[in-house]
Amino acid sequence: MLQNQCEFIDVKRLYTIITTLRDKSPLVHNITNFVVMNNTANALLAIGASPAMIHAIDEVEDFVAISQALIVNIGTLDSVWIAACKLAAIKASNIGIPWILDPVGAGATPYRQTAASALAQLKPTVIRGNGSEILSVAQQAGEGRGVDSLHGSETALNAAKHLAKLTKGIVAVTGAVDYVTDGTQVAEIHNGHPLMTRVTGLGCSATAVIGAFLAVEPNAFTATVTALTFFGVAGELAAERSPGPGTLQIALLDTLYALDEATFSQRALVKPYVN
Amino acid sequence: MLQNQCEFIDVKRLYTIITTLRDKSPLVHNITNFVVMNNTANALLAIGASPAMIHAIDEVEDFVAISQALIVNIGTLDSVWIAACKLAAIKASNIGIPWILDPVGAGATPYRQTAASALAQLKPTVIRGNGSEILSVAQQAGEGRGVDSLHGSETALNAAKHLAKLTKGIVAVTGAVDYVTDGTQVAEIHNGHPLMTRVTGLGCSATAVIGAFLAVEPNAFTATVTALTFFGVAGELAAERSPGPGTLQIALLDTLYALDEATFSQRALVKPYVN
Amino acid sequence: MLQNQCEFIDVKRLYTIITTLRDKSPLVHNITNFVVMNNTANALLAIGASPAMIHAIDEVEDFVAISQALIVNIGTLDSVWIAACKLAAIKASNIGIPWILDPVGAGATPYRQTAASALAQLKPTVIRGNGSEILSVAQQAGEGRGVDSLHGSETALNAAKHLAKLTKGIVAVTGAVDYVTDGTQVAEIHNGHPLMTRVTGLGCSATAVIGAFLAVEPNAFTATVTALTFFGVAGELAAERSPGPGTLQIALLDTLYALDEATFSQRALVKPYVN
Repeated sequence: MLQNQCEFIDVKRLYTIITTLRDKSPLVHNITNFVVMNNTANALLAIGASPAMIHAIDEVEDFVAISQALIVNIGTLDSVWIAACKLAAIKASNIGIPWILDPVGAGATPYRQTAASALAQLKPTVIRGNGSEILSVAQQAGEGRGVDSLHGSETALNAAKHLAKLTKGIVAVTGAVDYVTDGTQVAEIHNGHPLMTRVTGLGCSATAVIGAFLAVEPNAFTATVTALTFFGVAGELAAERSPGPGTLQIALLDTLYALDEATFSQRALVKPYVN
Repeated sequence: MLQNQCEFIDVKRLYTIITTLRDKSPLVHNITNFVVMNNTANALLAIGASPAMIHAIDEVEDFVAISQALIVNIGTLDSVWIAACKLAAIKASNIGIPWILDPVGAGATPYRQTAASALAQLKPTVIRGNGSEILSVAQQAGEGRGVDSLHGSETALNAAKHLAKLTKGIVAVTGAVDYVTDGTQVAEIHNGHPLMTRVTGLGCSATAVIGAFLAVEPNAFTATVTALTFFGVAGELAAERSPGPGTLQIALLDTLYALDEATFSQRALVKPYVN
Repeated sequence: MLQNQCEFIDVKRLYTIITTLRDKSPLVHNITNFVVMNNTANALLAIGASPAMIHAIDEVEDFVAISQALIVNIGTLDSVWIAACKLAAIKASNIGIPWILDPVGAGATPYRQTAASALAQLKPTVIRGNGSEILSVAQQAGEGRGVDSLHGSETALNAAKHLAKLTKGIVAVTGAVDYVTDGTQVAEIHNGHPLMTRVTGLGCSATAVIGAFLAVEPNAFTATVTALTFFGVAGELAAERSPGPGTLQIALLDTLYALDEATFSQRALVKPYVN
């Protein structure tokens, strides 16, 4: 009989990490896209982190050096921003600051695919994307199979495991179910709500929230699982009391700010994935 | 006795186009300004479209090629962005993708006037602006009359008709009353609410919503009328239950998401304009 | 016995300036950061101003020339934007348009420190920052003391007075208590709410609101005191009815829009500071 590959996930333990984040208020450096900068900053403030959005090639390295985590999101990339992303990521790796890559739209154009792949090769602590993005990045980072032959969440999970092994990091595939893997163990999270797909940039916010948890929890797998469970629980609570996506965007920030242990524990649906 | 120049506008028919948009969820490529990117993306998601904000000169042409419509908005233009706008617009025209121009602030500075005029000369499927913007663009695209001699909505309508003939496209002038023209026929829409002028970028959102409807309705005049009626009805409903512009911004997204046929039909105030 | 250094602050008089702003709706030119552009524009619209976000080096000077005030905020600076900030600030000074500098993050990196210092040397009508930012800018503009030796709000106030004398302008240090000084007289404002620190860019919005008041009130000290009192009262009213930072952001705009004289007068806590 197969053992769980994944360590037992203790929701009570996850909440202590949320409390630690609120207590420590880490400085989180974001290089992210224009669409979500405001929401991302507000999500980070709501959970208790201290965000900064800094992209100039003249200062990103200096700013990484005073931060506790780095977020790299290529949503509205151009050649100057990609250079800044690379400089910041290399600096973070060199001085031991955790960093997360959000390869927004990887695969949509050759330019975007090249940029996402180049950043993935800098070995992020975590990569978070939707199924298509992870499939696209995994292909570039490795086997060269056509994206067309890769589809469905089971396949995205295999690509995620493959990518995690290549980068020696954590990969998260988010969607109706979120998966987190280090290449061997996998956790799955069943929180969230379909209305969340009608608000722009909630995936980007999830990435930023993971980044903040990386700043306070040295185990990147645990940090990622905590972040996605927290974000999913807050999202579904917010969605349940929202008549539409406008209200959801606001209610999500209120919920991230106020979510307590009893509600978190009651709602969290996270467990080891067994193949 | 004069016939209506404009075909009878059937509100029931307009609502079927709204339903088509929700069903098809077209990919809409936006090159828009920093101020409104988030709101525009959220307005497009709320109505059921799939927005992307992509501006790099290295990928705009590739992205237009996979999109169903293109939005070009010059709000926070600079020389690099204008080049991207032109590349994207030319690509869209060449491969038959509908595109809409929002000449934000045309006439405010010589630089902005030149940019707006150059883009108008690329023959957008639709141009949408307020009275001043349409007057400014019309002047540049044609007769060279001073803007000072052109004022009032009646004059803006004449400029709009003139501009529509020059571009062989549709021109929409929005304000207390919205006018849509192809140079000959004109429709007028009496929906909307004064509080909408206190929220930034609702004109930009209206432009984006028109763009989304161009992706699913081949008659650009009908698509534009549908979009502005839909947006105006949603805006007035949202404004009526808002104590101020903050709430309006959120309520508008909720209403765009949830507006049903009965409410739309009851509220829509759209008719042929008779000179 | 010491006289008050500061003229008597008449709350009734401050409210007349708020009314003037709503009546005149000045055009306010903003060069600000990507994170807050939307919120800043909405805050300016809510108080009755007419905002524009314009940053291209090809048009900032022309746009300053048609504006009634200029906001310069270095939040997401890079070399091109700093050049635009300088061109706009020089133009404003040359033609007598009031302008305000928000030295976001001054001192965090050498690059940011240099940029903030260079702009401060262009003698803004007003500089607004938090304690750390004002301490950093004051050091560069003058004495060269290490930032480490400068801490606490009393010291920030001394730095503010010093900086005001150097720039021959007004300096505002905002925080739990806001101070406004011209180098000699000081006013203190005790409005606001701790939850405001959990919404991104409210400091930037405060800066923009000051800028709008500079457009209608020739006494820059009075304009700054009016703006910060107005913003603080609106912020605390909004916070008191908000379960979290999401709602606060929206409620603030509603309150800025609707705040009446009775409520303002009852809440305003502004007085001369006596050392």
